[in-house]
Amino acid sequence: MDQRISFVTLAVADIDVTRRFYVDGLGWTPELDVPGEVIMFRAGEHLVLSLWERSHFEAEVGALMTGHGVAPITIAHNLATPEAVDAVLSTARAAGSPHVEEAVRRDWGGYTGLLEDGTPRFVHGYSGYFSDPDGYRWEIAYNPDPKLGAIVLPD
Amino acid sequence: MDQRISFVTLAVADIDVTRRFYVDGLGWTPELDVPGEVIMFRAGEHLVLSLWERSHFEAEVGALMTGHGVAPITIAHNLATPEAVDAVLSTARAAGSPHVEEAVRRDWGGYTGLLEDGTPRFVHGYSGYFSDPDGYRWEIAYNPDPKLGAIVLPD
Repeated sequence: MDQRISFVTLAVADIDVTRRFYVDGLGWTPELDVPGEVIMFRAGEHLVLSLWERSHFEAEVGALMTGHGVAPITIAHNLATPEAVDAVLSTARAAGSPHVEEAVRRDWGGYTGLLEDGTPRFVHGYSGYFSDPDGYRWEIAYNPDPKLGAIVLPD
Repeated sequence: MDQRISFVTLAVADIDVTRRFYVDGLGWTPELDVPGEVIMFRAGEHLVLSLWERSHFEAEVGALMTGHGVAPITIAHNLATPEAVDAVLSTARAAGSPHVEEAVRRDWGGYTGLLEDGTPRFVHGYSGYFSDPDGYRWEIAYNPDPKLGAIVLPD
């Protein structure tokens, strides 16, 4: 089996609320929009994010987990600078995100170049989170690691 | 905010079990493997799938939803033919997937070319599901739609 994700599908309570947040708020353009059922967005070269009304999701996949707590998934959106992270979190707040956690310096990071004394220079990562209307957490991240951070940035 | 997903992160109970399934079972190659903590796989041009041990996930993101039922997410892996769908589901079964749902013809699909009388020819989609060791559902899919199906296939 190839290492490929084609679609990421999340169950949502109300497609109209989802549309207002992602389209009107974040400024995204749907690839497919079936009112009351599903809205899909391109989210990479060969990747689609699908937000599927929960009764349709349950009819095909099964009854959803209920109860308090966060869903066991996060989606990250990586950027090339800490300033760009702050800007996207501001956009999410203005779009009506129900929960924004300001970005903080993270323990993880990467070695980028050398210090004057020749030792490798460690630069910390920086990320925060916003929730979409269903509580799905988007991590907005700056990852200076030349390997992991660079892989996920667009060319 | 650009329409881009950089990482998909799933909380998992046991990294060793996850590694056995994805690496030994499905034959995937990790990009990063920190025993007991996280294992990451490239899953697209600028996309990484991260499987994060749940106590680490909860420390950063918050307490997880508990209870019966499926997680509110599926990940799809699309293929160019129905036969390739069956082959991947067989691979997942051999890899020890705890739950495989054989592929079936779906109501959705796409118009591909014309019938002899000149009317558009509708071809049904075909997909099944397997669960990974934590119960996350992978949909293995053939989508004949020239737009949505083609977007997600590799060049």
